[in-house]
Amino acid sequence: MSFDRMWAELAPLGRDRDTGGYRRFAWTREDAALREWFTGEAGGRGLSLTEDRAGNLWAWLGDPDADGPGLVLGSHLDSVPDGGAFDGPLGVVSALAALDRLRAEGWSPRRPVAIAVFADEEGARFGVACAGSRILTGGLDADRARALRDSDGTTMADALAAAGRAPSALGPDAEALRRVGRFVELHVEQGKGLVDARDGTGAAVGVASAIWPHGRWRLDLAGRADHAGTTRLADRADPMLALADAIRTARTSAERHRALATVGKLSVRPNGVNAIPSAVTAWLDARGPVAEDVRAVVADVAAAAGVDPVEESWTPTTDFDPNLRDRLATLLADPDGTPAPVLPTGAGHDAGILAAAGIPSAMLFVRNPTGVSHSPREHAEPDDCHRGVHALARVLRELG
Amino acid sequence: MSFDRMWAELAPLGRDRDTGGYRRFAWTREDAALREWFTGEAGGRGLSLTEDRAGNLWAWLGDPDADGPGLVLGSHLDSVPDGGAFDGPLGVVSALAALDRLRAEGWSPRRPVAIAVFADEEGARFGVACAGSRILTGGLDADRARALRDSDGTTMADALAAAGRAPSALGPDAEALRRVGRFVELHVEQGKGLVDARDGTGAAVGVASAIWPHGRWRLDLAGRADHAGTTRLADRADPMLALADAIRTARTSAERHRALATVGKLSVRPNGVNAIPSAVTAWLDARGPVAEDVRAVVADVAAAAGVDPVEESWTPTTDFDPNLRDRLATLLADPDGTPAPVLPTGAGHDAGILAAAGIPSAMLFVRNPTGVSHSPREHAEPDDCHRGVHALARVLRELG
Repeated sequence: MSFDRMWAELAPLGRDRDTGGYRRFAWTREDAALREWFTGEAGGRGLSLTEDRAGNLWAWLGDPDADGPGLVLGSHLDSVPDGGAFDGPLGVVSALAALDRLRAEGWSPRRPVAIAVFADEEGARFGVACAGSRILTGGLDADRARALRDSDGTTMADALAAAGRAPSALGPDAEALRRVGRFVELHVEQGKGLVDARDGTGAAVGVASAIWPHGRWRLDLAGRADHAGTTRLADRADPMLALADAIRTARTSAERHRALATVGKLSVRPNGVNAIPSAVTAWLDARGPVAEDVRAVVADVAAAAGVDPVEESWTPTTDFDPNLRDRLATLLADPDGTPAPVLPTGAGHDAGILAAAGIPSAMLFVRNPTGVSHSPREHAEPDDCHRGVHALARVLRELG
Repeated sequence: MSFDRMWAELAPLGRDRDTGGYRRFAWTREDAALREWFTGEAGGRGLSLTEDRAGNLWAWLGDPDADGPGLVLGSHLDSVPDGGAFDGPLGVVSALAALDRLRAEGWSPRRPVAIAVFADEEGARFGVACAGSRILTGGLDADRARALRDSDGTTMADALAAAGRAPSALGPDAEALRRVGRFVELHVEQGKGLVDARDGTGAAVGVASAIWPHGRWRLDLAGRADHAGTTRLADRADPMLALADAIRTARTSAERHRALATVGKLSVRPNGVNAIPSAVTAWLDARGPVAEDVRAVVADVAAAAGVDPVEESWTPTTDFDPNLRDRLATLLADPDGTPAPVLPTGAGHDAGILAAAGIPSAMLFVRNPTGVSHSPREHAEPDDCHRGVHALARVLRELG
């Protein structure tokens, strides 16, 4: 199966030898290698490759401008720091393999079909998740995007230029978007919903119902730089204490509000062993089934830390197109007619951004036996990956 | 006065434009520029410059091998991240200026005299404070030193090689040490002891009594990388929670034990907004008048965090040579006979390392009106700096 060949080709790209995790960040050398790989795959299949103004790649079969809009499958190839192999690439490789499978059977689509690779989905480098689809749809302003900085201080504009793109061209792309009739993103599940489905019998593939409301907030905790060995405790303004309160409150408030809250990223200045910090920046990730509850957690954490939180992103509940969702659940039913499991997710995805922009969109999840995500321990069994390819092939046959 | 000229020359070297603080780390380009500056000053005065096997610089007047041991003044030129201008350079520049002053008066010393610049006093880059004097005296094993890594993963051995030194030559240097009869380090005070001295009347210059016992411990907090948006709170192993407990306990336990404890440096892996960390490393700095109390604080923090602390350094109480201390307090008495204030400090210094190695050593402190240290707000008034030069000149005349 072409899936296995492609999967093996991608395995070494951007892999960190020490952690075994992936470091595939937007507009880096690793990103360029992944894009080159996809360009080769598209060319080898006779697909017509274009890059939109937001840096997303589209490999079209057929002419969407003449005969569109078409059906688009796909996902992303970038990763979080020390991420797993599946989050993103599974959707891209499965879509290519599904197309191979149908074409080997002599199938040809009724309408244009594309496989898309979205840019900078994880936001690992510049801090805004789904940057490619957000810029494409106008949800992220291009000026703001260009000014985003990575941890080395490099702006996205400079990173684009270094990658051979014209930063001034970055922006929403109505033409690229108009070609998309429907979008279906296959993704490794980031939890154990499919392991536990059907009273624990489990299922290899499921369909997404909705994406929880979610956002990121920055907490700028101010202190006063002083010598750790000579400044009396009473004279200190140590922002680490506010950090400790923020971390603790994130957990207790999330428990109380049945939400999720995480402090996963910190920046300490000057970050010296014997220096009381002048400033600590902490980022809060919060999400949950109910938007008001998520907002309440953020307010609790900000109050505990004594700061006004800076909202870096906020995405309301995304309900995927109900008709498409039900159609896929039926299409992917077991032979006995049991429909595919339908389950929500706490993670944001490009499919959610496109759905919010009015494009009928859906997601398929592939079972993850560890339930772990954004980690080298993220996994999907080869059998389940092949079932995912099979599911996408059915989607192509039904909707393509 | 030559002090002002030299002070102005040093001001721009290694200064961060954004913070106004200094970033002068061992074996960097900035460090090389400072060493070059000192080499020029030594040469201009006809002093004989040598670098010992630990990378410390010695500018000798007279021949310590023939006529020694001699009197050494000096301090260091490196800084903490975003440090102030005075911590270190004040002692070096004041020593040079004191020598100028006496020579202008036609004075010549009875015994060899040197001005020393110790390498890597702050330990800002490789994590071990007073690395130069510790390696010199054998307190820091050369193999361990060579293997120390900075935050980019560069070892001290590689940094030495990049700076044109032979890493294999690094080690204790009995020959260099044998030349030192007495060592006197002038330093900006890192507190308000001299502001508050003499019932608040204050004093420009004081003499150190002792350095508190102090150390650095590393806390390796282990977690499990997971997706912040999909992992249930109950399923998480989030090391940030242990960090919060460590920070809080450091403060409360230090208050209880009348000690100082600070978490000033953190490293988070992978440090992504939507990634539950796989690991957090926190460094604890603890010190106080009583060693047992400091140890108790470290034990409390480690218990709160649920880890075994890794001791990166520990320095017991350093009592400076009592005879030398009393002699200097008398020498620097006011015209009415009031001796110079004698006060302890919580900060470690090369003078403490040499004292612990058996060399009669002393420290002079210059008044710091802000009491702040390791910060751009660290300060000493020009008048007080000149009084420090005057004090060192009296020391030179008395002991040199």
